[in-house]
Amino acid sequence: MTRRFALMIEPAASDDPRTDFATTFTEVDPSAPALTVGELSTQRGDGVFESIGVIDRHAQEVAAHLDRLAHSARLCDLPAPHLAQWRQAIARAAAACGPGESIVKLVLSRGVEHGPAPTAWVTAAPAADFTAVRAEGVRVVTLDRGYDLDTPARAPWLLLGAKTLSYAVNMAALRAARQRGADDAIFVSSDGFVLEAPTASVILRRGDTFVTPAAQGAILQGTTQQSLFEHLESQGFTTAYETIPASTLPAVDAAWLVSSLRLAAPVTAVDGAALTHDRALTTAMNAYLLSPRD
Amino acid sequence: MTRRFALMIEPAASDDPRTDFATTFTEVDPSAPALTVGELSTQRGDGVFESIGVIDRHAQEVAAHLDRLAHSARLCDLPAPHLAQWRQAIARAAAACGPGESIVKLVLSRGVEHGPAPTAWVTAAPAADFTAVRAEGVRVVTLDRGYDLDTPARAPWLLLGAKTLSYAVNMAALRAARQRGADDAIFVSSDGFVLEAPTASVILRRGDTFVTPAAQGAILQGTTQQSLFEHLESQGFTTAYETIPASTLPAVDAAWLVSSLRLAAPVTAVDGAALTHDRALTTAMNAYLLSPRD
Repeated sequence: MTRRFALMIEPAASDDPRTDFATTFTEVDPSAPALTVGELSTQRGDGVFESIGVIDRHAQEVAAHLDRLAHSARLCDLPAPHLAQWRQAIARAAAACGPGESIVKLVLSRGVEHGPAPTAWVTAAPAADFTAVRAEGVRVVTLDRGYDLDTPARAPWLLLGAKTLSYAVNMAALRAARQRGADDAIFVSSDGFVLEAPTASVILRRGDTFVTPAAQGAILQGTTQQSLFEHLESQGFTTAYETIPASTLPAVDAAWLVSSLRLAAPVTAVDGAALTHDRALTTAMNAYLLSPRD
Repeated sequence: MTRRFALMIEPAASDDPRTDFATTFTEVDPSAPALTVGELSTQRGDGVFESIGVIDRHAQEVAAHLDRLAHSARLCDLPAPHLAQWRQAIARAAAACGPGESIVKLVLSRGVEHGPAPTAWVTAAPAADFTAVRAEGVRVVTLDRGYDLDTPARAPWLLLGAKTLSYAVNMAALRAARQRGADDAIFVSSDGFVLEAPTASVILRRGDTFVTPAAQGAILQGTTQQSLFEHLESQGFTTAYETIPASTLPAVDAAWLVSSLRLAAPVTAVDGAALTHDRALTTAMNAYLLSPRD
């Protein structure tokens, strides 16, 4: 059964004192036209978004996603989202989901061209079945992201730490990976450091330490990566944010791409060189990530 | 009077033998919902576009714009656009324009998520009034584009030569320019070469030679720049495509940002240093650009 849901939102100002935003929501048919051709999201990818995993109608890590939405909006000079309003919209979307895994997506667009205000909406839909990829993993290739690590500080207009709707490059990188016989990609800075995957964070294991690239504005702060790091620490592991030379990838003990929907996908090969895959650990990671998290 | 127009297009396969595509067009109200929330243009800026100037219902340089649309589609692994179909859609849109200057916009989106085919549409609307900016010019700041000149050849997945809908960075650069007290920006490569403006090409004058950055995949091929170069050559000037160090900008005799709608906007200052502005030449350039061109 396919349950799809869409809710248009009239964005409230961030200091709106209301506590109930029901009147700002309009449910629409997700397969019917809802947006005009003047939408700047569609004309220029001009807006920000979040994808939230939902397990049995429980939206995961809502606070972390809303934090990041607000951060992305700030980087893009969009009005600050009213977090209570978004929380209520997410609750409506999560309640509309079926059992099992679903996806709730938040979109905050700059609005209609020459229009007065941002437009916003939330959608819900069943998630794809990621059982196989969580068990069997992904082969990745490294792809040059074009920037060096110092770029974000030098050029904030490149919006490198924002989750904008301008995702054409991310999608092109996934196609490039598949053309090279891989399933996914790890972006590397032009000066040779590990960044992130087109739609996931990268976590590497060295002994009992789990490391992920230090964000430094060059990559998105991963909500799932952060949640998993907390869990790993509670299990007695060490976690660290580091500047990681891509040349060290072949020497890691294991690697994962982690994201809100697919969760932890073990990396079984990098640029054709096999990586060890600790199935028991991956299974435990995904059991944690599939449990209700806030 | 505001005349706005929108036409949804069922994209034909590039080898479709029909000569009349009227049945593939559906006129829609440009201010009414026409796109679903599942549109990948809106979710991921995943598609390509063109903006065509229209003068008294004559669409300018249609062939050059369609060439570039096809080039962008190829870089993005989108199905090749059927050029005769697009030409008919443009003709419909241009005919719907009022007198004076208008804009016709073409959008080819990857389609609806999990959907079978691209979606496409054409819009028409009155152009903004660019009289003042053509006469008085723009002050620009140089902004680092983050890439070096060799990047496009090394990393085609960055789609640097494609006019994609993922324009959030272009819009952020314009905001950054205004925050710095300027009107517009010139992007410079991280290794210090002139590239393009966020929504325009750059033309520089040195004596009787007009130069523009060699594209090399790093920038868009400018339809208006190409048209203006043909005209300048017919007037006895020399034109050239060069690799231009940004450090030479203060020494040029004049500079313009040229684009399909605003046409030739003289650059009156770069990073706060004044540039000479040859008003008569700019007026002649815009007189040519406002004449019917094919």
